[in-house]
Amino acid sequence: MTTTGPQARGRFEELESDECIELLSAKHVGRVAFCRASGPQVFPVNYVLWEDSVLFRIAPDTQLARHLADARVAFQVDEIDDFLQCGWSVLVVGQAHHIPDPDGFPANRLERPEPWASGARTQFVRIDREDISGRRVQPM
Amino acid sequence: MTTTGPQARGRFEELESDECIELLSAKHVGRVAFCRASGPQVFPVNYVLWEDSVLFRIAPDTQLARHLADARVAFQVDEIDDFLQCGWSVLVVGQAHHIPDPDGFPANRLERPEPWASGARTQFVRIDREDISGRRVQPM
Repeated sequence: MTTTGPQARGRFEELESDECIELLSAKHVGRVAFCRASGPQVFPVNYVLWEDSVLFRIAPDTQLARHLADARVAFQVDEIDDFLQCGWSVLVVGQAHHIPDPDGFPANRLERPEPWASGARTQFVRIDREDISGRRVQPM
Repeated sequence: MTTTGPQARGRFEELESDECIELLSAKHVGRVAFCRASGPQVFPVNYVLWEDSVLFRIAPDTQLARHLADARVAFQVDEIDDFLQCGWSVLVVGQAHHIPDPDGFPANRLERPEPWASGARTQFVRIDREDISGRRVQPM
């Protein structure tokens, strides 16, 4: 079996953390992943960055809320160009915490995450970034 | 604190499994998530569907390959409209396996996944779908 295929392929590279943070700052929707006994779970959320944390809102008193109360999670953002077959991905790993009283932060209310979906998504969750890494496939 | 915000918000709905499979079939890039001792990891891969499995290729003899040798993983695809603040997400949960000899499948070589990045990504990985679920936020 030929393992490299006939077509030209893109160049793969790891990204520096500065560039990862820049890319993370430029997006509004990412995916939070956490581990359950039955396997990993991944859900998209819209978010804002606040200092070294990723901030988003979910519905309280749900299984998701309970899982994100104090758990090690990953948060992933990416941008994929299906036509050019290239893109980048950034992964944050850190601890998720509920924020019982979000009034202290961010000072500017307009900088807080606003859920897209209706329903009372009153639980603020913060992921404290401990590690950030990224990768890119450049087009040929 | 006002929890519902001033603006109109989209309608949230769970998707039926038939629709999830249809959406999964229409995409080419998804994200594989797996659990490590240090927390969950998420990486985008391009894939094809083959029967009830998600099929993709990675570099052999890597940490990623070792983690996907026989592990419970999640595979997520989505489509997000940042402007309209709507989108959908589909999540597959199942067991990942290496496929030592991929010559038996898919019969048509053109239907096999072709990695975007250069390098010998000779390890085929199959995720056997055990559960599929999805969600959508409709625009207002």
